[in-house]
Amino acid sequence: MLSLATASASPAVQEVTTFAPGTLLMAGLLTVLTSSQGLLTAASKTGDSYAYNFATVPFLAELTKLGISSYLLMRQRAADPASIRMTKDWRTVALFIVPSITYMIHNNVQFFFLKYVDPATYQILGNLKIVTTGLLLRVALNRHLSQLQWMALLLLTAGAATSQINTDCTAGTVQSVLHAPFMGYVFGVVSALLSAVAAVYTEWVLKKNNDTLYWQNMLLYGFGSVFNFANLAHSKIGARDGWDLLHGYSLVTWLVVANLAFSGLLVSWVMKFADSIVKVYAASLAMLLTTLVSIAFFSLEPTLQMALGLVIASCSVLLYYVPPAALTAAPAKLPP
Amino acid sequence: MLSLATASASPAVQEVTTFAPGTLLMAGLLTVLTSSQGLLTAASKTGDSYAYNFATVPFLAELTKLGISSYLLMRQRAADPASIRMTKDWRTVALFIVPSITYMIHNNVQFFFLKYVDPATYQILGNLKIVTTGLLLRVALNRHLSQLQWMALLLLTAGAATSQINTDCTAGTVQSVLHAPFMGYVFGVVSALLSAVAAVYTEWVLKKNNDTLYWQNMLLYGFGSVFNFANLAHSKIGARDGWDLLHGYSLVTWLVVANLAFSGLLVSWVMKFADSIVKVYAASLAMLLTTLVSIAFFSLEPTLQMALGLVIASCSVLLYYVPPAALTAAPAKLPP
Repeated sequence: MLSLATASASPAVQEVTTFAPGTLLMAGLLTVLTSSQGLLTAASKTGDSYAYNFATVPFLAELTKLGISSYLLMRQRAADPASIRMTKDWRTVALFIVPSITYMIHNNVQFFFLKYVDPATYQILGNLKIVTTGLLLRVALNRHLSQLQWMALLLLTAGAATSQINTDCTAGTVQSVLHAPFMGYVFGVVSALLSAVAAVYTEWVLKKNNDTLYWQNMLLYGFGSVFNFANLAHSKIGARDGWDLLHGYSLVTWLVVANLAFSGLLVSWVMKFADSIVKVYAASLAMLLTTLVSIAFFSLEPTLQMALGLVIASCSVLLYYVPPAALTAAPAKLPP
Repeated sequence: MLSLATASASPAVQEVTTFAPGTLLMAGLLTVLTSSQGLLTAASKTGDSYAYNFATVPFLAELTKLGISSYLLMRQRAADPASIRMTKDWRTVALFIVPSITYMIHNNVQFFFLKYVDPATYQILGNLKIVTTGLLLRVALNRHLSQLQWMALLLLTAGAATSQINTDCTAGTVQSVLHAPFMGYVFGVVSALLSAVAAVYTEWVLKKNNDTLYWQNMLLYGFGSVFNFANLAHSKIGARDGWDLLHGYSLVTWLVVANLAFSGLLVSWVMKFADSIVKVYAASLAMLLTTLVSIAFFSLEPTLQMALGLVIASCSVLLYYVPPAALTAAPAKLPP
């Protein structure tokens, strides 16, 4: 009774919290791929540095995503041409340039951000994107979260930050998050806002019409490839190792590229059929998963803050995604 | 509509979350007094040590509580004799010995606990009493908490522990919570269970009948005075400073005694008219309040973990005490 009453009285909340099995699978897969991205990237290093040019990785990943999307579109067109929907007028196509531009601006802001704060502070302030994504969904897409869900986002931010608290005295680093220069916070907030803009805009543009996702992906990754190529060309001006993009590539490097490409495709799917919050959760849970894998297989020392971060983030997931009626119902009374 | 539906459908949850203005006032006062206890105790030190015998403080506080309760009972008896309810049969009176015995056992366990773990670990593992109190309320008193409230208790534990993470490298201490000897965890859990037993038992015995609280307090503090005196006498055997209990007492020492006495009386009130969870929240929030006061007035360096602990504990309070209907309702849709 309670469950039904709540569900019918608050359709807006139900709409947000509904979590189809397909979404759960995709979100889980995205978490695993995001987590393995960090592990593979570390494994692709030769000693302490990369034997290959790291800037080639996102470019090749964009090309891979473009290739896969084109192939899937062709296959669907051959199998069931009537099901394909593609809007080709330039005003719609042009909308797909914006994510690439936003990511480019974001990359530059990150660069300045890192000039003001140390990497540990950079990482911790980076969690602000969880809250900014929620705020932007509210403001720009008029999406409604319950107070419980806002609290869940706040707790995910706090839990992720907790797990990143540095207590390693041997490194000689001091926790400086609360003592960063003012401009550090400014760039931190701007960076978190840009990250949210990129995510929420992509969600908006993918959901804007019923176009086939493969076609939308082709536009997204087509522009992405161009911008990444431009970025690569820019970095190559005057570089001595020439245009042999695959110089120093190993099997692991190719796995890094493939992993980045597939997680990108999953993000697209999640943005079209679920929302930006799922992506935010996948990113934070991936970080905790990486930590757990590192503890289990790479003899990373487990710390209290990692355990606390895991507890807090797990509570956050339940608060956000479990239907409220299940969380607030009183359990059946046992006989006294 | 939603609010009404939820309230009527889940009386068990409403019963627990109802928070009368009187309770809020008492809980707030208890938080402030618990917090000032630490600050006053620190202020009562001469240099790094106490000029007085610290074991006299709980004894004199018990005597003060006994005196105040007796006075209030007498006054009420003079004003309105018919309103007084006192059960004097020995089987009921004897029940009030148990809290004193439990506290005595608890003190001894704490002593062994501290032999196995360092003070920082001791403090962090001490937060386990939040969860054990919830569990014991469920098991012993058949009290029902919603999943949201269990999560709130878990988050309070995690938030309190987060705020206590040690990142001070200058002290040369290493975070050792996850590396304590096995017996450290055993004593940690036993200590948390005993703390819960003391609280939940006291709640049970005070709520057991409709006896006047002043009378119940007289029994509680009468036995408390006897046990504290015995403890003091035990510690005095062979001590060289004799029986001048007030040796070295200053005005601040008297404030420490008065503060402890009044917070004890507040705990009694909270146990009788609210529950053990209110006491648990007051204790954790008091710790955070002490931190904030120390930052504001005693130039304690604010840290990230303190800020995170405050955010997490605040979410916990809201999750536990705000009626679920208010947390899960979708806000009204703005016009698009």
